[in-house]
Amino acid sequence: MSDDSGIIHRIEPGSKVDLRAIDPRRTPGLSGSKEEERADAERLHGENIAAMRSLQYRLWAEQKQSLLVVLQGMDTSGKDGTIRHVFGPLNPQGVRTRGFKKPTPEELRHDFLWRVHKHTPEAGRIVVFNRSHYEDVLAVRVLGLIPEERWRQRYDHINDFETLLHESGTRVVKIMLHISKDEQKERLQARLDEPDKRWKFERGDLETRKLWDDYWAAYEEAIERCNAEHAPWHVVPADRKWYRNWVVSSIVRSALESMDPRTPPPAPDLDGLVIE
Amino acid sequence: MSDDSGIIHRIEPGSKVDLRAIDPRRTPGLSGSKEEERADAERLHGENIAAMRSLQYRLWAEQKQSLLVVLQGMDTSGKDGTIRHVFGPLNPQGVRTRGFKKPTPEELRHDFLWRVHKHTPEAGRIVVFNRSHYEDVLAVRVLGLIPEERWRQRYDHINDFETLLHESGTRVVKIMLHISKDEQKERLQARLDEPDKRWKFERGDLETRKLWDDYWAAYEEAIERCNAEHAPWHVVPADRKWYRNWVVSSIVRSALESMDPRTPPPAPDLDGLVIE
Repeated sequence: MSDDSGIIHRIEPGSKVDLRAIDPRRTPGLSGSKEEERADAERLHGENIAAMRSLQYRLWAEQKQSLLVVLQGMDTSGKDGTIRHVFGPLNPQGVRTRGFKKPTPEELRHDFLWRVHKHTPEAGRIVVFNRSHYEDVLAVRVLGLIPEERWRQRYDHINDFETLLHESGTRVVKIMLHISKDEQKERLQARLDEPDKRWKFERGDLETRKLWDDYWAAYEEAIERCNAEHAPWHVVPADRKWYRNWVVSSIVRSALESMDPRTPPPAPDLDGLVIE
Repeated sequence: MSDDSGIIHRIEPGSKVDLRAIDPRRTPGLSGSKEEERADAERLHGENIAAMRSLQYRLWAEQKQSLLVVLQGMDTSGKDGTIRHVFGPLNPQGVRTRGFKKPTPEELRHDFLWRVHKHTPEAGRIVVFNRSHYEDVLAVRVLGLIPEERWRQRYDHINDFETLLHESGTRVVKIMLHISKDEQKERLQARLDEPDKRWKFERGDLETRKLWDDYWAAYEEAIERCNAEHAPWHVVPADRKWYRNWVVSSIVRSALESMDPRTPPPAPDLDGLVIE
């Protein structure tokens, strides 16, 4: 077992969430100079990856359970980088990622979980959502796209949906990459200033940035209302990318360990079989 | 409005269901000789179809609501014939049917609603399920395919799912075609005896017939546990096909009428526009 349970930044179900009280630059679980901390985080992250590879192999062989990782966070919070560093090293045959952007006209003509449900993982598989059904109580709320009574109903719908997944063998793990407004400023500026990052810059991100406080309020309520023992939220300090990577790999490793996937026992009727 | 509300055979939510107490040969709402009853039922069914066509047109133009009709029933209960007679006359562009048979290996590796959710209707559309997610608490239960505690969880999952659909603009209407064991005997025998019906005969139907009482018990509990005001069950006496057709078209017409779809108002900025 990993001993990272203290640093996975899980929000206790039923508790309030105050994002202002969670410093996105903190690195609890590490000590020493920043260089020492970084070296430790990278080493520990590497150990997590090795453990996750072995767990993924067993999950695939077992063919009974699956894992859904929901990644959320403000623009530039590092969702893409997290996927590259945490899930990139796994066997791609057993991992799928799925991004959810603005719904298509076809998707809007269905309930909000219709497009999401299609992409949940089957037995043996890990799926990572880059944004998710939570945007339907985040962006949709902040931008006022539907009346309040309608997005409020969605907390129950999400809880019901995640309960269905859980009771069907899918572990649901939800992660908010938590960056500071200052850190976002630097990252957006870098996208403007560095020619090979310019393609990532979107003008719309500046509009979203103006709504920072509204988004945080929406995140806080969504996390509070949709945080179950069987589908917990984690708020990961993400200003430092090396810390974020280590924490997320620790969360995923810990989830896989608690699922305890097992390679099926050898079939006894194959004992002594000789390939001629 | 249609005045068929007395003959749609809706089961009051919260009430017990005793299939033995519902005679599949009865034809309430009609009177006279059987020939007279049949002629009346066919005429009234025709009136329903005309009304449904007009309602379907408005549903399609409105693009806000949708209708899901769940058809269940024992083998030979007439699901295919009902679809042909009730939905066949509608504009096929606005109607889709979807059958659910034994799940594929891929489907079995997901939660039981995964394959179903994909096929729910988008705004403007009518979808008919020929069998449905209810098989996951009917056949699955009777055949003992999964442990009781697992299929029992599914009542809640189904209720949550149908609530999601309802609150997203999809009207859910559920219909059990209720035939007698004697009538099934005749219909199965006809499949054996008439060369052009032989293709419909499946040996497995005889095994299912042996489990008749178990299926009825499973139906009774499923209907009781998953019968909401917003997603009601109807148990339709179905030994007489002409009666069944009239009742089902009455149910669908009544559902569409209560949805009250409206053609969007003419855009005022097009007033006076002349096509040159």
